[in-house]
Amino acid sequence: MLDDLCRQLEQRWHREIPISSAMGIEVVSFAGDELIVRAALTPNVNVHGSAFAGSQFSLASLCGWGQLHMQLARRGLDASIIFVDGRIQCLKPVRADMAARCRLSEEATAALDGLASEGRGRCRLSARIESGGELAAAFTGTYGLKL
Amino acid sequence: MLDDLCRQLEQRWHREIPISSAMGIEVVSFAGDELIVRAALTPNVNVHGSAFAGSQFSLASLCGWGQLHMQLARRGLDASIIFVDGRIQCLKPVRADMAARCRLSEEATAALDGLASEGRGRCRLSARIESGGELAAAFTGTYGLKL
Repeated sequence: MLDDLCRQLEQRWHREIPISSAMGIEVVSFAGDELIVRAALTPNVNVHGSAFAGSQFSLASLCGWGQLHMQLARRGLDASIIFVDGRIQCLKPVRADMAARCRLSEEATAALDGLASEGRGRCRLSARIESGGELAAAFTGTYGLKL
Repeated sequence: MLDDLCRQLEQRWHREIPISSAMGIEVVSFAGDELIVRAALTPNVNVHGSAFAGSQFSLASLCGWGQLHMQLARRGLDASIIFVDGRIQCLKPVRADMAARCRLSEEATAALDGLASEGRGRCRLSARIESGGELAAAFTGTYGLKL
């Protein structure tokens, strides 16, 4: 069931966000309230032969978006998820395939819990970009939710 | 001469950053220390039918990178431009083609002026994303320079 949701999320991104398809984004797993997505280096390379910061931002921001999408699906809620703002710190060059991990935050749980009664909400989520087993970039984004 | 530099920058991005080609990024102009780049909505659309935040970040961060590239070319310097961190605030949905504008900052001028003697530098640059004549997103990025 969770594997089906991961596949559906990946298919939806590729169909409705063409850049996610050009990046070759894959949804790896959703377990223990952690969503993992990944992308190969080749389509996301920059002039230095490492991963383009824009691709890292896209991967991380979609990881946060996907975390909220999975939580909404689990709660049987159909809400819009709107990106508000985000920050990424690139800590070291990404010279191999990369993965983004996003864990559910307490702030996001509170926003999701209040959504049915409030009709809307807003929360921050963080994601880590890892490559070769090391932390390469840190992302924090703010997302709006609207029923 | 400036038109040639704009064309060369666009060609370099498309050749060495495949995502910039998938996004259809164009370098519009470089005049009065302002670089303008643009991208059509269609390849950069998201699930809401507006511009994907990741594409907006990519366009704005490349606009800052390109501003430094043009200033280095003007000074006859060959330095690496390394993205360090960035933040984007999405103020309203982008429902048409979008442009990013980046003006040279005093901080960037100082970093460029000190580059020949210091061998390296760091500076912040801001870029605006506009669509339909209105400000749609605000970006600030930090870039490292290394001879």
